[in-house]
Amino acid sequence: MSLKIKYADGSIGEIADENAALEVYRHSISHLMAAAVNKLFPGTHLGIGPAISDGFYYDFERPEGFAEEDLAKIENKMREIAAQGLLYEPSMMSKDEAIAYFQGQGEHLKVELIREKAGERLSCYRLGSLVDFCLGPHLYSTEQIHPESFHVLSIAGSYWRGDEHNQQLQRIYGTAFLTPEALSEYLKQIEEAKKRDHRKLGKDLDLFSISEEAGPGLAFWHPKGTRVRLIIEDFLRKELYRRGYEFVTTPHVARDVLWRTSGHYDYYRQNMYVFNIDDDEFVIKPMNCPGHIQIYKSHMRSYRDLPIRYAEFGTVYRYEKSGVLHGMLRVRGFTQDDGHIFCTRDQVYGEISDTMDLVLFIMQNFGFDQYKVELSVRDESKKGDYAGTEEDWRLAEEALTEALRSRGIGWKRMEGEAVFYGPKIDVKLIDAIGRPWQLSTIQFDFTLPKRFDLSYVASDGLAHQPVMVHRALLGSIERFLGVLIEHYAGAFPIWLAPVQAVIIPISERHHEYARQVMRRLVGADLRVEIDGRNEKMGFKIREAQNQKIPYMLIVGDKESQSGEVSVRNRFLGDEGSQPLGGFLGKIEEFIKSRAVRP
Amino acid sequence: MSLKIKYADGSIGEIADENAALEVYRHSISHLMAAAVNKLFPGTHLGIGPAISDGFYYDFERPEGFAEEDLAKIENKMREIAAQGLLYEPSMMSKDEAIAYFQGQGEHLKVELIREKAGERLSCYRLGSLVDFCLGPHLYSTEQIHPESFHVLSIAGSYWRGDEHNQQLQRIYGTAFLTPEALSEYLKQIEEAKKRDHRKLGKDLDLFSISEEAGPGLAFWHPKGTRVRLIIEDFLRKELYRRGYEFVTTPHVARDVLWRTSGHYDYYRQNMYVFNIDDDEFVIKPMNCPGHIQIYKSHMRSYRDLPIRYAEFGTVYRYEKSGVLHGMLRVRGFTQDDGHIFCTRDQVYGEISDTMDLVLFIMQNFGFDQYKVELSVRDESKKGDYAGTEEDWRLAEEALTEALRSRGIGWKRMEGEAVFYGPKIDVKLIDAIGRPWQLSTIQFDFTLPKRFDLSYVASDGLAHQPVMVHRALLGSIERFLGVLIEHYAGAFPIWLAPVQAVIIPISERHHEYARQVMRRLVGADLRVEIDGRNEKMGFKIREAQNQKIPYMLIVGDKESQSGEVSVRNRFLGDEGSQPLGGFLGKIEEFIKSRAVRP
Repeated sequence: MSLKIKYADGSIGEIADENAALEVYRHSISHLMAAAVNKLFPGTHLGIGPAISDGFYYDFERPEGFAEEDLAKIENKMREIAAQGLLYEPSMMSKDEAIAYFQGQGEHLKVELIREKAGERLSCYRLGSLVDFCLGPHLYSTEQIHPESFHVLSIAGSYWRGDEHNQQLQRIYGTAFLTPEALSEYLKQIEEAKKRDHRKLGKDLDLFSISEEAGPGLAFWHPKGTRVRLIIEDFLRKELYRRGYEFVTTPHVARDVLWRTSGHYDYYRQNMYVFNIDDDEFVIKPMNCPGHIQIYKSHMRSYRDLPIRYAEFGTVYRYEKSGVLHGMLRVRGFTQDDGHIFCTRDQVYGEISDTMDLVLFIMQNFGFDQYKVELSVRDESKKGDYAGTEEDWRLAEEALTEALRSRGIGWKRMEGEAVFYGPKIDVKLIDAIGRPWQLSTIQFDFTLPKRFDLSYVASDGLAHQPVMVHRALLGSIERFLGVLIEHYAGAFPIWLAPVQAVIIPISERHHEYARQVMRRLVGADLRVEIDGRNEKMGFKIREAQNQKIPYMLIVGDKESQSGEVSVRNRFLGDEGSQPLGGFLGKIEEFIKSRAVRP
Repeated sequence: MSLKIKYADGSIGEIADENAALEVYRHSISHLMAAAVNKLFPGTHLGIGPAISDGFYYDFERPEGFAEEDLAKIENKMREIAAQGLLYEPSMMSKDEAIAYFQGQGEHLKVELIREKAGERLSCYRLGSLVDFCLGPHLYSTEQIHPESFHVLSIAGSYWRGDEHNQQLQRIYGTAFLTPEALSEYLKQIEEAKKRDHRKLGKDLDLFSISEEAGPGLAFWHPKGTRVRLIIEDFLRKELYRRGYEFVTTPHVARDVLWRTSGHYDYYRQNMYVFNIDDDEFVIKPMNCPGHIQIYKSHMRSYRDLPIRYAEFGTVYRYEKSGVLHGMLRVRGFTQDDGHIFCTRDQVYGEISDTMDLVLFIMQNFGFDQYKVELSVRDESKKGDYAGTEEDWRLAEEALTEALRSRGIGWKRMEGEAVFYGPKIDVKLIDAIGRPWQLSTIQFDFTLPKRFDLSYVASDGLAHQPVMVHRALLGSIERFLGVLIEHYAGAFPIWLAPVQAVIIPISERHHEYARQVMRRLVGADLRVEIDGRNEKMGFKIREAQNQKIPYMLIVGDKESQSGEVSVRNRFLGDEGSQPLGGFLGKIEEFIKSRAVRP
């Protein structure tokens, strides 16, 4: 399928590439939306209206704003206009002509844009009565727009040109797909994503909170969230110790000199929180590397000491604009499961290979079986822009590639996407509803060993510079919790669940037996609660279901006499009465195997 | 024994109280030291020379400074002068006379002090040729000074009046006791304390470092220190979960408003690190309470939810002058094993009682069997100065007292030592060489629940204010590590030792068996290293002893054939060959019982 389009010069073309076609389609529908808004709300003025990664938007100047119920009206009006089979008509005009025209319409934002435009001629597109300043290309005609292929989604405040010092505009978001089926698929996914929203579930399941009062982007982990966090940390810590890592602990603040040496003070200052102690400048750490380097440097190191692998659950703080913060997924303070490997060149391949194993181990244990891998390498045409020797880059890139190839892992090579200090692997997991999330990074660093003058004494008796690799497996524990919640829709695998079972006594006289059951399970290190409230059984079961507790154990006369529990699995429903010991054995097996579903 | 003294007005008296006598004795010996310095180093000018808690000092102005070897000369000259049987001769003079006299001597610092003095007459004391401006009283004569009862200890830089903007002086420290035996006892203790100095051992055992470059008072925990820290945290965490605590995690920075509400911004601002994000003020947390309160307040609470006990290993940052920082014992960033209990008035006694049990449990498990307890209560004559009702103070004080009494724990009642917001218990442990260290605190707080407007719905359906108790068991993990090191002189009990055993193969051909032994022990979760270096056995054993590793396992032909290890206990020496399984069983028993000595 290819899309017929019209360029600004009036020529007609076709687009075969689906992504490019989709962009033109969405962009044309954003014009359609602007035309509908102009009809419905005369006096509304235009900002800009681009296609974006999952749809389009248009910014409108309308001080009285739009109401939620206007969205459906707009959508209907769009269908009505589309049905008229209007053409997207380009015309080239001189800058002065264009300014005069838009001034006449009162479109002062457009005038501002046009004034800044270089060159003397520019293009506009007319759609019915709407004329927009636009480079195109666009669809040929609204006949090409299927009435069920687009949807107006939401309204949000925005600022003219994204600058909060400018006037506020109303941004209307919509989406569109080349077929009604694709739209319907997408809408189903966002509906599903809404149900999984970790911000909502985080509150419903009492896992964490973030408040404007205490500060945007700063997470408070409640008892249940902290349980999950500690389980994750303990699991990872044990595994890292087993694999030859050593844990260290570095302070959250340190003198500016560390950040001047690392270079962050020069190119990352705008994201760092800086304050003074006496007459000196200190920084709240935005990363853990300089701290680990301090420990590396606290001794003379020999080749016999290498590889040195330091790990830390290091909480860092970075400035982000409040507008981009998003629950646990984008915060101002987060805890990296950070690690730094210092090794000889001979050890590079082994270390990268082991790290890749670790990444796979982590994904498997947390129940992620889909992922994609990106390998970011240099832009070969600009080798001079990168730190590190030719030999270093070759070695690093080969190690990364081979670690993937030998495991049969496919990857996408991102030419020119490497940062200047070294190549990297990014692993993005794909969640239960197909969304990708950045997870692990394995990043070479050819600058810090030099900047901090790191060395080890090699077998030749001379000082050499070690290779340094940054790697984070989960990325940040905050974001990882968010991803886990969205992936599992809050129903964590039993080994991660903050409460693994709730015991529900049928009546007051079963409380004593409920406590016996609780003691037995807690004695086996299970996380168990009793719901002893004076409420109906159905209510308690519903609430346990909503709290996503894997097991409900109902105990009444029969159970207390036989030493059993009546088991209700939140996924599979009633599993009947079972001896307590048998249930315990089974659940312990699920925990040990880190099964995703009981 | 009482001490004969001379007051400034020339009258003679006696002091029976030992502490008061010791102060006069030391003060008089500081004059003796000044007299000796004046004789030996003419042109040296005088600052001040008081008695202090463990001796005395005198500040001298001498730009060329003193050398380490001058200390013995000074001490000898002091003996020589004391042997002359000089009198401490007071004289009252007018302010003008005094100024004229000290100006004539070039003692401009004394002149500065005298000028500030109120009143028209003041007292000086003469000792031989030294005249000092001094209130007295002093000894009657140097005949009362036993030549072996004092010792000149050290030199340090100081600033005139402790202000770093003033000129630098040379402070000479000395100590003195009423008997030579008491001095000798004290010197032995400081000698012992020097060997246990956690700063030296912290470096020798590679536990932590603090550097001027990264920032004074900011600790970097190296791998071995972090091992110990994690063992402590895990132990405590497990115990707290068992005892009904819930862990939470709160950010290290939060908006100023939290600290304005808590009141810290008003009375603690000079110790807080403050910075800006966008246009708002943020604080690096100096304490965890407001964070825990945020979580308490995230829900409506019912009496059925109480008691709520939140715990966090919360790292806080507080400003301290760089001059008072001391290794891990006094730092700018430290991790409190912090906890807050929110409960009803009915629950207060049970909570305090449980907390006291926990304190005893902790001390016992870390091998401290001596401690002293202080109970800080209100100044009954100034009840108006305290927050909280009469009823609250009575309830709290009774709970604290009863928790001690019912356990047969003695305490010292510190009248008027309570802070304004509530009474508290302080537990100070006594270490192996008799020094007290602040450990646990149980502190009532009658202000924060009010300031943050905390409430719960009681069984009467109305909102009530909960009682809040702050408690820290170890105080800070940094300081606790310092105390553990000094108490155990670095030789941690085996359950805490970062390395529990080192395997020493006799020669190259025993390396394979050494690795087998290692695998078996590591498989049982022991922390084990192999010393496979090409060094003499004696050297390796000496080094393991110095590293305070509890066990050395020597493996040679005999051991590899019989599946044994030749065990050397660092305290008890050679324990002979033992089957590996038997050794493992024994060591596991020591770990499980948290035995202090294997």
